[in-house]
Amino acid sequence: MSPPADRIVMKFGGTSMAGIERIRNVARQVKREWAKGNQVAVVVSAMSGETDRLVNFCREASPLYDPKEYDVVVASGEQVTSGLLAIALQAIGVPARSWLGWQLPIRTSDAHASARIGTIDTEALNASLAKGEVAVIPGFQGQTEGGRVTTLGRGGSDTSAVAVAAAMKADRCDIYTDVDGVYTTDPRIVPKARKIEKITYEEMLELASVGAKVLQTRSVGLAMKEKVRVQVLSSFGDPDAEPTPGTFVVSEDEIGENNVEQQHITGIAYDRNEAKITLTAVPDRPGAVATIFNPLAEASINVDMIVQNVAHGTGSTDVTFTVPGAELARSLDVLEKAQQEIGYAKLIPDTQVCKISVVGVGMRSHAGVAATMFQALAERGINILAITTSEIKVSVLIHEDYTELAVRVLHTAYGLDAEDAA
Amino acid sequence: MSPPADRIVMKFGGTSMAGIERIRNVARQVKREWAKGNQVAVVVSAMSGETDRLVNFCREASPLYDPKEYDVVVASGEQVTSGLLAIALQAIGVPARSWLGWQLPIRTSDAHASARIGTIDTEALNASLAKGEVAVIPGFQGQTEGGRVTTLGRGGSDTSAVAVAAAMKADRCDIYTDVDGVYTTDPRIVPKARKIEKITYEEMLELASVGAKVLQTRSVGLAMKEKVRVQVLSSFGDPDAEPTPGTFVVSEDEIGENNVEQQHITGIAYDRNEAKITLTAVPDRPGAVATIFNPLAEASINVDMIVQNVAHGTGSTDVTFTVPGAELARSLDVLEKAQQEIGYAKLIPDTQVCKISVVGVGMRSHAGVAATMFQALAERGINILAITTSEIKVSVLIHEDYTELAVRVLHTAYGLDAEDAA
Repeated sequence: MSPPADRIVMKFGGTSMAGIERIRNVARQVKREWAKGNQVAVVVSAMSGETDRLVNFCREASPLYDPKEYDVVVASGEQVTSGLLAIALQAIGVPARSWLGWQLPIRTSDAHASARIGTIDTEALNASLAKGEVAVIPGFQGQTEGGRVTTLGRGGSDTSAVAVAAAMKADRCDIYTDVDGVYTTDPRIVPKARKIEKITYEEMLELASVGAKVLQTRSVGLAMKEKVRVQVLSSFGDPDAEPTPGTFVVSEDEIGENNVEQQHITGIAYDRNEAKITLTAVPDRPGAVATIFNPLAEASINVDMIVQNVAHGTGSTDVTFTVPGAELARSLDVLEKAQQEIGYAKLIPDTQVCKISVVGVGMRSHAGVAATMFQALAERGINILAITTSEIKVSVLIHEDYTELAVRVLHTAYGLDAEDAA
Repeated sequence: MSPPADRIVMKFGGTSMAGIERIRNVARQVKREWAKGNQVAVVVSAMSGETDRLVNFCREASPLYDPKEYDVVVASGEQVTSGLLAIALQAIGVPARSWLGWQLPIRTSDAHASARIGTIDTEALNASLAKGEVAVIPGFQGQTEGGRVTTLGRGGSDTSAVAVAAAMKADRCDIYTDVDGVYTTDPRIVPKARKIEKITYEEMLELASVGAKVLQTRSVGLAMKEKVRVQVLSSFGDPDAEPTPGTFVVSEDEIGENNVEQQHITGIAYDRNEAKITLTAVPDRPGAVATIFNPLAEASINVDMIVQNVAHGTGSTDVTFTVPGAELARSLDVLEKAQQEIGYAKLIPDTQVCKISVVGVGMRSHAGVAATMFQALAERGINILAITTSEIKVSVLIHEDYTELAVRVLHTAYGLDAEDAA
């Protein structure tokens, strides 16, 4: 007896769609799931490199291009691959048709080039799926209420897949990518890193935003909101064979039900894209800190970690904080212009830093996680430059030379090392 | 005082749209017309080479590709160029927006990959033009009643331009191309060939279908039906300067009004893509000819010129006719299979032939056109293998070696040579 059929969304990125040979490979993977009796919608990216080509056309045409027309141009990449995948599916006996963003339609806000998905009509889609047809849907695109083409911003196809899964009430949304799941940390640094079977949306958000980039952050947020079960798995296995299970990104309830022995920590992430700024000898008076952070906030610069060292008896203080590395030059510019008002002595930038984050939902109910971290790093002589914490995360800033050492030490300290690895 | 403003359609082909530099050049040409106060809609092709690239993707994906999905893929080429031209126009201060086939919409039949245009909604388009916006419309594409993407077949952008011009009741439809007009004959053969100022739709159809390929035949037929004034002109002049007038393709009424002294002959065309077939010793009995042409008609092979030579006293006849060169192999196959029924002795193919056509609306009211032709060719010893005539055309089949000589002799005989040329 065959298992009961599911409604599933399968999403394939640009690398999987790069050229007809690979598209044919994707078609076989889709056929495998469809042949089980599942109702299948496929969401596809443009061929890798194609979106860049189209974006460059727009920039060449005018650096100040109209985002409405930019969307018309760049949405074409996914239109091409969705038509081609439908053809490739039909060629191996799978009934399939493409549904462009405006055909379903996928309604979005009118924030062109970075639109947000509103509602997706599913009447026609459901009728097509019920007939046994595979629906091929271009990711990244939609249309406004007024009927103009929109795109969701780079990496938006993950979000399209989750939104389609939510709209069609799919049993799961499988994101096929070039890694076979989410790991406890970067396997290039820690060979003993383990693939995580199940991870909560919240943990995934923390891991993604601090460096373990597997899923687009917005797509995880949407999956959490809409309770879509997401699986990250490899697109490079034998297309006809049952794939190796990847990592499921699910709600905390599902984790709790299945994992009797909860782990405290799920993974260790690192992020080298932070920059540290220190202002020396800031007058130690009420409101001094506001004079630093107000102008940064007005410039929409996101400040992350903040440390304030009061030098006793001097009446002044050093203030240290981090900003995204890409915003460093702009931050320095803002702060130089505000020197008079802030009254600091020196402005010291430092890009040779790394943020290490320990993430886990278990942290909420278990004390000592932070203590373990500080002790493990101290034993190896790793100096902590700054600290932040959230309900499910503790992050520390260290000198970037210690990145790999710190990740390995913490991976072991929290008992994450795989037992069977060397 | 400025002249009263017109409503015009400007159409640019793939060569003019190949790359951002050329698209910027097109934008300047559009600005020139718009700045006069004209209401302007622009119809664009894909970048040259792009449609071939997309067609090849489809063929690679499956030789038996679904034309519905093929249309989704190949329509993207014009989508890209319409967005880019809108951006390039905005960059030089011209308000512009793209209108995709499904946005206007341009409704077509559901004959995917070779759809025919039905109706075009102009409400939104007219409102946009009235605001002074330039409308940029991708050629070649439309949508079915059911909302699926269609394309019109290769070269369909000319037809799109004429259809848009008809729908918006444009004063004229300017087709910018890589020649500066329609000539009395091929200037590579006859340096004294003259650019024709005005030509009727009917003459243009005859000239186009026999070799002078400037406009897609379907677009001329549609222009005739909808009475759209078409101008063929060069896209390679100074984009900011008033362009040199090209050739107007108009109704016979307009020609009659303006040309008091009507010319008998408008142009001379030639076509090397015909093949001659001779069947020898066909029994000379009623119905014999039908046994030849019925099987060819059933195979959808178009027979053009027919000559029947009765050999006195033998009770048999030779039958000679022409078919398109590309259909020769299939024609021979059909005729070999029907040999029993037809009863001919030999089947003699000949591809070394050329059809020369003399075209002119004046022919209808003037006798002697054919006589002049036969005499001019006979004086040079050019043997006529077959003849056909229509209301505005006399065509003869000759050995292809005499093509250039025949065209030159006839160009002079009908008084078409330019006076100022060498």
